[in-house]
Formats: sequence, C-alpha cells, structure tokens
Amino acid sequence: MSLLTVGTVAFDDIETPSGRAEKVVGGACTYISLAASYFVTPVRVVSVVGDDFPEDTLDYLRRRGVDLEGLQVKKGEKSFFWAGRYHSNFNSRDTLDTQLNVLATFDPILPEIYRKSDYLMLGNLTPQVQIRVLEQLTHRPKLVALDTMNFWMDIALDDLKKVLEKVDVLTINDEEARQLSGEHSLLKAAKVIHDMGPKYLIIKKGEHGALLFHRGQIFFAPALPLAEVIDPTGAGDTFAGGFMGWIAKTGDTSFDNMKRAVIYGSAMASFCVEQFSIERLKGLTPAMIENRVEQFAELVKF
Amino acid sequence: MSLLTVGTVAFDDIETPSGRAEKVVGGACTYISLAASYFVTPVRVVSVVGDDFPEDTLDYLRRRGVDLEGLQVKKGEKSFFWAGRYHSNFNSRDTLDTQLNVLATFDPILPEIYRKSDYLMLGNLTPQVQIRVLEQLTHRPKLVALDTMNFWMDIALDDLKKVLEKVDVLTINDEEARQLSGEHSLLKAAKVIHDMGPKYLIIKKGEHGALLFHRGQIFFAPALPLAEVIDPTGAGDTFAGGFMGWIAKTGDTSFDNMKRAVIYGSAMASFCVEQFSIERLKGLTPAMIENRVEQFAELVKF
Repeated sequence: MSLLTVGTVAFDDIETPSGRAEKVVGGACTYISLAASYFVTPVRVVSVVGDDFPEDTLDYLRRRGVDLEGLQVKKGEKSFFWAGRYHSNFNSRDTLDTQLNVLATFDPILPEIYRKSDYLMLGNLTPQVQIRVLEQLTHRPKLVALDTMNFWMDIALDDLKKVLEKVDVLTINDEEARQLSGEHSLLKAAKVIHDMGPKYLIIKKGEHGALLFHRGQIFFAPALPLAEVIDPTGAGDTFAGGFMGWIAKTGDTSFDNMKRAVIYGSAMASFCVEQFSIERLKGLTPAMIENRVEQFAELVKF
Repeated sequence: MSLLTVGTVAFDDIETPSGRAEKVVGGACTYISLAASYFVTPVRVVSVVGDDFPEDTLDYLRRRGVDLEGLQVKKGEKSFFWAGRYHSNFNSRDTLDTQLNVLATFDPILPEIYRKSDYLMLGNLTPQVQIRVLEQLTHRPKLVALDTMNFWMDIALDDLKKVLEKVDVLTINDEEARQLSGEHSLLKAAKVIHDMGPKYLIIKKGEHGALLFHRGQIFFAPALPLAEVIDPTGAGDTFAGGFMGWIAKTGDTSFDNMKRAVIYGSAMASFCVEQFSIERLKGLTPAMIENRVEQFAELVKF
C-alpha cells in the first residue's frame, strides 16, 4: 500500500511554557510522513524546501521508507519558517513570525508514480495547492483525508469548500468545526460538514482527545494524561500520519477500523508532544506504540 | 444506605447562548440530592433557604426520598441568589450578581440521625461550613467527597486545606486542579492533591469529560456529545450527586466501581444540561439512565 502526503517541510522557532527551541525541523508533511512510516511504506512526499534544509533529516526520512522524489529542493532559496509562542495552558498560541520563502511560489508536481497512490493525506496548506494535487491524480485513492485550519476558512472559504467536496475525511479542531458549520453543537456541526463532502469528520481537541463522526455514528478517543508536555507543535499532523498510516497498513476503511486508526493516531501524537520538533518520533518501536495503544484501552475501560 | 449532602438551595438567574431563565430553582444541594435520589434513599439535606423558596419544589424532593429535616427555613428572609451569564462557548461564565441572604449567617446544624450517615457529599460552600459539618458527625462515613472551587482557593486556602485532610474524594475542574497543585500536568497535579488528603481526585472538564485519579491509576469518562446544550448550571453538582448516589447504592468503593460511578455521574450531568434549572432531572426513569450509560460505553469502544 502507498500513502501520498502533501504539506510543508519547514523550520520552526518554538516557545512553550516548558522551554524554547530555535530553527528546529518542523512542517506538517514532516510529521505526517514520519508518523505514517511506522505503519506503511512507501510514504510519498510532495513538498518544497530551500537548500538550507538539513540533509541528515532527509536521509533519516529516506531510511524510514519515506519517498522524497516529490520533494522539490530550491537552490539558493530558504525553507518555510514559522515562529510561535504557546500560552500557559498549551492550548492556544500566537504566531510571532511567518516567512513563506519557497512556499510563496510552491507548485506541487506529482512524479508519475505518485499519481496512482492508494491513500492520500492532504496536510494543512492553501486549498488551491490541495486542489492542484487532486487534479494530478490519475486514480482516485481509496481514502482521501484533508487537514485544514481557521486561517483558510477566513481567507479562502470558497476554495476550501471546493476541496471538501472531493475528500472523505476532514480533520479540524472543535473551534474550526464550529466556524465551518455555524453550529455550536459538535453533533450538529458534523451533520453540516458531512453535507459539504467529508463522510468522516475527525475533531481534534488536543489534550481533550478526539471525536470521529460518520453519519450519526460517533467515537471518542481520549488524550493520554502525560507527566510532561514539552511542545504541542505537530501533534495534529502526527495524529493524521498515524491515522492514515494505520488505514493504509490495514487497507480497511470500515468505521470500526477507523476507530482503531484514531487510537493509533492519538498514540503517535502522545509521543510527539513529549519533545520539541520530531525528536520523540525518532526510533520508536512497534512495542512502544502498542504499549501506548494499550494505555488508551485501559484508560476508558469500565 | 444513607447519603448526607450539604450545600446551597437557591435561586438562579441564568443567561446562556441558548436562552435565559429568571429566578429558577438552583443550588448545589438541590442538584446533588435530586440526582442522588435516583440511586439511593434517604438523601439527607443540610442547607438553608428563606421563606420565599417554593414549597412545591420541596414537596417534589420529599416525594423522591429526599429528607429535608436538616433544611433550615428562615422566616422573613430571602434564599441565596446567583445570577450568571455564560460565554458563547458555554465553558466560561461571568457572575453578574450574588446575594448571600440566608447564606450569610448559615450555621449548618445536623439533626441527630444525620450524624451517622453512610456517605457524605460536601457540596461547594465556604470550607468553614464544610468543617462545621464534619465536626458534628458521630461516625466517620464510609466515603466523604468534597466539591469546591477556585474562589475558596483564592480567599480561604488554609481552611480548604484543613478540610481536604479529612476527605476521600475531591471534585474540581482542570484549572482548579492546576491552581491547587501548582502543576500544569494533571498527572502531577493528582499526586500533589493526593498528598493533601483526597485519595481520589475527580477532575471535571465539562464538555471534555472527567478524569478519575487514584494513586497512579487513571480512568477517563468522556462527555456525551449532545445535540443541544441549554444550560450547564448544576452539571458538576448533578455529576457529584449521581457519582455518590451510585457509590451509596452499591456500597462498593473499589476503584472499578468508582469508574462506574463516574459514568453514572456523567450520565446524570448529560441530562442536567438539556434544560434550565432542575427541569430535565425530573421524572427520569431507570431505563433512561441505563440507556445513557450504554451510550457512554458505545462511545469509547474500539
């Protein structure tokens, strides 16, 4: 099975109540592909970086079965850069700086082999780029998931609605679900969003867990209470990578298996937040992942 | 089995994004005793009202097996009154008015028979009143639970710490757990709070569910996604009433049974928020409650 992912590969400056990190590796596609690589190969990346991006990180991803043929490296240019500061509760953050750099002119070009991929995870990016990727596919993937954010709802809602018509799974947070649907009740929001296209809606609530909606069916996955949260950056992308990785590994898109995928996504996200950047996601073992999944089962058993 | 409860019996003016209600029946002890009455009788009330409090509400409680011998009715005085407005997300609220009235001079006096009760739920009140109740007990209940809030942590922390030494279960929300412990991680907060006295800590997170901690063991109960939330007032008290009612009914304080108690408390709270005041909590049937509990089980099953 092959999983195609599209999104940013970038540098981040991060400040959280637990500390700070400067110019560390980040980007939605980085987190998605690394998390997914624990479940399925190849994970195919469509993204862009400047020639400032560390070759050893790219080598590490390649060794994990991530295919970087679709990663454009722009000579003499700089990678996308984001700087943010988290508030004391870790749940909200301020953007301190955004330098688009190579992203300003990014035109996603899918290598021939990518155009027929079994699964597709469209990471958070301008909806126009997400549409451009869908247009290049020669075969419809078995499942298309899309991540987005309030920013695109504010400035590119029409484009976003066009992409939503073509995707199966949407992952957003609770406030975004309310904004997109105009409904406060998440139950009602899910119905409105189903009608926009996505048959499956995943509402990510950070430390409060995640909800999966599918036409009247609901599943809730808690977040694991952790002794230490260092940096929530990338947790949503890591969740998406784990989720789609599990679906691609099992080839099963039943609602029951989607529940398990949500748990695997949550387990991967619980690792992600324990360190800055992608550090905690390196060198995990299947046993470590299974152990976390077991903790989720224990947490809600009564 | 007998359950003793102490707390306010009051009037509320409430404004929520779903509507408003004026001078409706409220108060922690009202919600606690009504919710608990679905599981155990007698539920013994220690509280105070003025002679303005509606006799039909008191009659209704009596018919449900609530013993009001410990409810002081002050002639010519007015009941405690609270007015509040919820923000658009329902999770935070402003107090618009507080009129202590009879509560200003409240001295809780336990009728002789109350002094030997099997279970005790100390509703949110000044810690000094909670201490006064504990002092009058002639037998230590099998389980003592206490609800409190940030207000008492701000102005009466020393008294609060004295009561905490004497209770088994503390119910507070996540921000209060962080304030009381000085720890952001709820896992670490639980350890600090265990050392203050309560062997069990329940962290109520409203629409995000509830966590039960007991010396390294954790259980998580989600909140049920609801089509319509009308008024969150009293949900925490209703939770406490359902929780202690279940414990008192079963007489089982094992961690496994506490988990079930958290689910029953959550189920009762899910009814509470569907109407203003105590309206939705009237006329429930065992089958309606079991059906909700079943929905909780379904929601997290994978």
